[in-house]
Amino acid sequence: MGMHVVFSVGTAGSGKSLLTSALREWLEEKGWGVYIANLDPGARNLPYEPDADIRSIIDINELMEKHGLGPNGALILAVDMAAARLHEVLQDIDEASPDYLLVDTPGQMEPFVYRPSGPLIVEQLPGTSKVMLFLMDGWLVSNPLNYVSIQLLAASVRLRFPVPFVQLLTKADLIEDQVDRVMSWSSRPSELEDAISSSSDGEAYLMHRRLLSMLARGGYIEKPIPVSAVTRAGFLSLSSALANILSGGEDLQD
Amino acid sequence: MGMHVVFSVGTAGSGKSLLTSALREWLEEKGWGVYIANLDPGARNLPYEPDADIRSIIDINELMEKHGLGPNGALILAVDMAAARLHEVLQDIDEASPDYLLVDTPGQMEPFVYRPSGPLIVEQLPGTSKVMLFLMDGWLVSNPLNYVSIQLLAASVRLRFPVPFVQLLTKADLIEDQVDRVMSWSSRPSELEDAISSSSDGEAYLMHRRLLSMLARGGYIEKPIPVSAVTRAGFLSLSSALANILSGGEDLQD
Repeated sequence: MGMHVVFSVGTAGSGKSLLTSALREWLEEKGWGVYIANLDPGARNLPYEPDADIRSIIDINELMEKHGLGPNGALILAVDMAAARLHEVLQDIDEASPDYLLVDTPGQMEPFVYRPSGPLIVEQLPGTSKVMLFLMDGWLVSNPLNYVSIQLLAASVRLRFPVPFVQLLTKADLIEDQVDRVMSWSSRPSELEDAISSSSDGEAYLMHRRLLSMLARGGYIEKPIPVSAVTRAGFLSLSSALANILSGGEDLQD
Repeated sequence: MGMHVVFSVGTAGSGKSLLTSALREWLEEKGWGVYIANLDPGARNLPYEPDADIRSIIDINELMEKHGLGPNGALILAVDMAAARLHEVLQDIDEASPDYLLVDTPGQMEPFVYRPSGPLIVEQLPGTSKVMLFLMDGWLVSNPLNYVSIQLLAASVRLRFPVPFVQLLTKADLIEDQVDRVMSWSSRPSELEDAISSSSDGEAYLMHRRLLSMLARGGYIEKPIPVSAVTRAGFLSLSSALANILSGGEDLQD
């Protein structure tokens, strides 16, 4: 088989780096060769040792100093530079040709998602198949109002990347007693509506309900896979979802 | 009258700071007292002199150093700290009590929009009336695929802030020949659909069309006001929209 590429995106703090790290260990235990590419130029204290790293060619502090930029501007410039110099970032990976390449994206989604560079990177990165994991922060979306907002964000992000999308509900171990409730929202919008009505009133209630029913009618409330990078809960479901997408269901699981 | 508060949000580079600056000048020429609060802890080279500034109490470089954080983590921490210490940031403004307070938010939306702190700041900031400007980057959304994605983002952001929302199409001077086309998309979804079909095919086309018709059916494709911070195109429309929202249409224009 060729190289399968798995991108992770999600709002800041949703658990991208931790999941990337845990997923590598899991896949390696199953016997696969796994590499990680870190595309966050501003990462500090990553929970894994990246095999390819945007930071090896771009120093964000140097960018800030050299171009008189604040951290926002420097992050954006760095991602743009990474797109232009992708082959340099990936040099070692091309040679190793692992079964999986896990790509950890910038801590804040914005410079990757809403600039031309992110979609360019996803398109140009070599690989026989690609998939994007959209991480919904378990803490954040166990509030029904946040859930609707993040589902709209997911739909928006999805349009930016023409690759298969898998929604994950992260930190399942931390919101254990909430997982069933949140999961029920995706299969039964009426339960989400009830939850919205008990968390809001007046105009906020009407607006959430209206957008929710819009998403539900469009078939855009997807059932996420609840996962925990700590307990590995949900990793079997995640790996079989990846198997289905990446290799048409063949031999990806043990 | 009391203090009207105008927040600006939008993706990085959409023109928040420049619009904030130009809007102050415009309102001051009309005889109003206008203050600007900068809430971007990582701002460099602002085009205006802020009257209140998150940077006066929070040094992002110090946060990075002290807590071993990268720029992402530091930006998030800074916005969270700003929410907790809002009264310190606003000290001078409380005393001056201007007619308008223009609030410039962080360069990247994410730490402000998808964390609890941003909505808290919007709620707790004193003011007799509040409005949020959502800036759509003219360059970005003159591509019909980006337009749909940003409209979904707008809907998502809107849910996070229970205040009136005004959509702006920025950089109207730079996309002069495109403005009519983009504006037509909001009034006639069929034209947007045509534009989508000439910019995409296969699954991407189907997905954009499906989400578009979902937004259109829900009444969520709004007509933005095209503006230019450079030529002041659209400022009359913008100020009358603000007048309608902030003071029920009374005496806000000259």
